[in-house]
Amino acid sequence: MTELWLIGIGTGNPAQLTLEGRQALREAACVLLPRKGPGKDDLAHLRLAILADSGSAAEVIPFDMPLRDESLPYDERVARWHEAIAARWQAALEDAPEGPVALLVWGDPGLYDSTLRIAARLPGPPRLRVVPGITALQALTAAHATPFNTINGAVTVTTGRRLRDGGWPEGAESVAVMLDGACSFRSLPPEGLRIWWGAFLGMPEQILEHGALCEAGPRIVARRAEARARHGWIMDTYLLRREPV
Amino acid sequence: MTELWLIGIGTGNPAQLTLEGRQALREAACVLLPRKGPGKDDLAHLRLAILADSGSAAEVIPFDMPLRDESLPYDERVARWHEAIAARWQAALEDAPEGPVALLVWGDPGLYDSTLRIAARLPGPPRLRVVPGITALQALTAAHATPFNTINGAVTVTTGRRLRDGGWPEGAESVAVMLDGACSFRSLPPEGLRIWWGAFLGMPEQILEHGALCEAGPRIVARRAEARARHGWIMDTYLLRREPV
Ligand SMILES: C[S@@+](CC[C@H](N)C(=O)[O-])C[C@H]1O[C@@H](n2cnc3c(N)ncnc32)[C@H](O)[C@@H]1O
Ligand SMILES: C[S@@+](CC[C@H](N)C(=O)[O-])C[C@H]1O[C@@H](n2cnc3c(N)ncnc32)[C@H](O)[C@@H]1O
Repeated sequence: MTELWLIGIGTGNPAQLTLEGRQALREAACVLLPRKGPGKDDLAHLRLAILADSGSAAEVIPFDMPLRDESLPYDERVARWHEAIAARWQAALEDAPEGPVALLVWGDPGLYDSTLRIAARLPGPPRLRVVPGITALQALTAAHATPFNTINGAVTVTTGRRLRDGGWPEGAESVAVMLDGACSFRSLPPEGLRIWWGAFLGMPEQILEHGALCEAGPRIVARRAEARARHGWIMDTYLLRREPV
Repeated sequence: MTELWLIGIGTGNPAQLTLEGRQALREAACVLLPRKGPGKDDLAHLRLAILADSGSAAEVIPFDMPLRDESLPYDERVARWHEAIAARWQAALEDAPEGPVALLVWGDPGLYDSTLRIAARLPGPPRLRVVPGITALQALTAAHATPFNTINGAVTVTTGRRLRDGGWPEGAESVAVMLDGACSFRSLPPEGLRIWWGAFLGMPEQILEHGALCEAGPRIVARRAEARARHGWIMDTYLLRREPV
C-alpha cells in the first residue's frame, strides 16, 4: 500500500459526498470495506450505494473488524484494537490491484474517528490523503437551519461522557455533543438552555426536536427511546446554547 | 421570495461542493451574488466558477453590499448592517424569476457566517433550506491529515479575539481558531502546545505550517506577513493542541 485515501462520505445522505470525494472514489484502485457482522450492516449497505452511485470501478475488498479485548484497560484496549485493524487491512490487501487504496469514512475523517490513528500504525507508512466530508454536526445545524455559533461566540465540541463528567464547559456559549448514548444533557441544570437535537441525520429516518431544554429534554428522551426500540439502533447528536438573558 | 436556499460551497476548492449543493444550484431559479467593490472580487470570481461548473442555469442577480456604520456601537452596527443587506436582497429580487433563490455561502452556512441571521430579517419569512458545506477547519485538518480532536477529547472552536481576551479555554485539549487577523496564538504561553496552521486552504495559494508552537509560531507570523503582502489579503485558520505529557 503506497497511497491511502480517507474519504469523508457524510453522515447518511449520499448527496453529502463532495465532488472531490466522488472523483477520488473513481480514481481509487480499490476500496477497503469493513464487515461488521450480521445485523450491523446498515451502514455497509450505504457505503456500497455511495460507491455504486459514484461511478467508481474500484475493486471492493472486504475485511472483518476485529473484536476489542474488553479485559484490557481502556488505552491499551484501543491501541491493540487499532493495531489489529491495521493488520487486517494489510492482510486484506495482499492480492489487491496496484494503486490508491480508499476507505469510506463516516462524516469527516477528522472528527471523532479513528481511521487516521489506525493508518498511522501501518508500516511504510503509505502516503495519506484526507478528503473532508460533511459531519453530523453540520447535518444537524443545516436540518434545523440554525447557526453553529452565536455571533463571535465559542463552541465546545465534546462527548456525552465529558458533558456528564465535567458539566457545562466554562466560557462556552454553545456546546455540541456527539457520542452520547445516554442523553447526557439530563445532567445539566436545564434553566436558560436551548437544545437542537437530531437522530439519523440525513437519512430517511431523520428526526428533529428543538426548544427550551426543560420542555424539549423529556420529549427527546422519549422519542429517542422509541426510535431506538423501533430501529434497533440510533445515532444522535445535539447542540446546546445558553439563551440570551 | 418564498424559498431561500443557503448553499455551502466550501472554502476555495470548487471540488468541495457536495452533490446536494450542485443539485440545489441546478434547481434554483436565481442566485444572489454580492458585489463587494473593486479589488475585493476574488471570491465573487470563485463563486461564478462554481456556478458555471455546476451546470446551473439560474439567473445571476448581483447586489451591492452596504457599508457598515462604524460610528454605531458594535451590536447595533451589526443589526443595522444585517437589516440593510436583507433590504438589498429584496430590492435586487424585484424582477426575479419565480422559484427558489440561492445564496452561495463560503464554507458551511452555520459556521461564523451571518447569512442565516440576515435571512431571519426578511419579511414573510421565506422557507429556508441550508445545504451544509466543507468548513475551513475541515480543509485545515484534511490538508494536514491530522484529527480535529484527541481520542474522546473536547475541541473549542473560537475566534482570535476570544483567544487573546480569554486565554486557553479551560478543559479543552484542542482549540480551533478562526477570524484571527493578528496571530493571536502569540498571546499564549507556547510551552507544551502544538499548532497546525493553514492559509488559503483549498486554493492554489494554500500554505501550511505545523510544529511545536514555540518554533512554528514565529515561522507562521513571518510566512503570514509575507503571503499577505504578496496577495494583498489572507484568510487563515489553525488548530492548537496540548502535547501529551
Ligand atoms: C464515531 S463518531 C463519528 C463522527 C463522524 N466522523 C462525523 O464527522 O460526524 C459517531 C457519532 O457521530 C454522531 N453521528 C454520526 N452520524 C450521525 C447521524 N446520521 N445522525 C446523528 N448523529 C450522527 C453521533 O453523535 C455518533 O455518536
Ligand atoms: C467569516 S468566517 C467564515 C467561515 C466559513 N463559513 C467556514 O465554514 O469555514 C471566515 C474565517 O474562516 C476562515 N477561513 C475561511 N476560508 C479559509 C481558507 N480558505 N483558508 C483559511 N482560512 C479560511 C478564516 O479563519 C476566516 O477568518
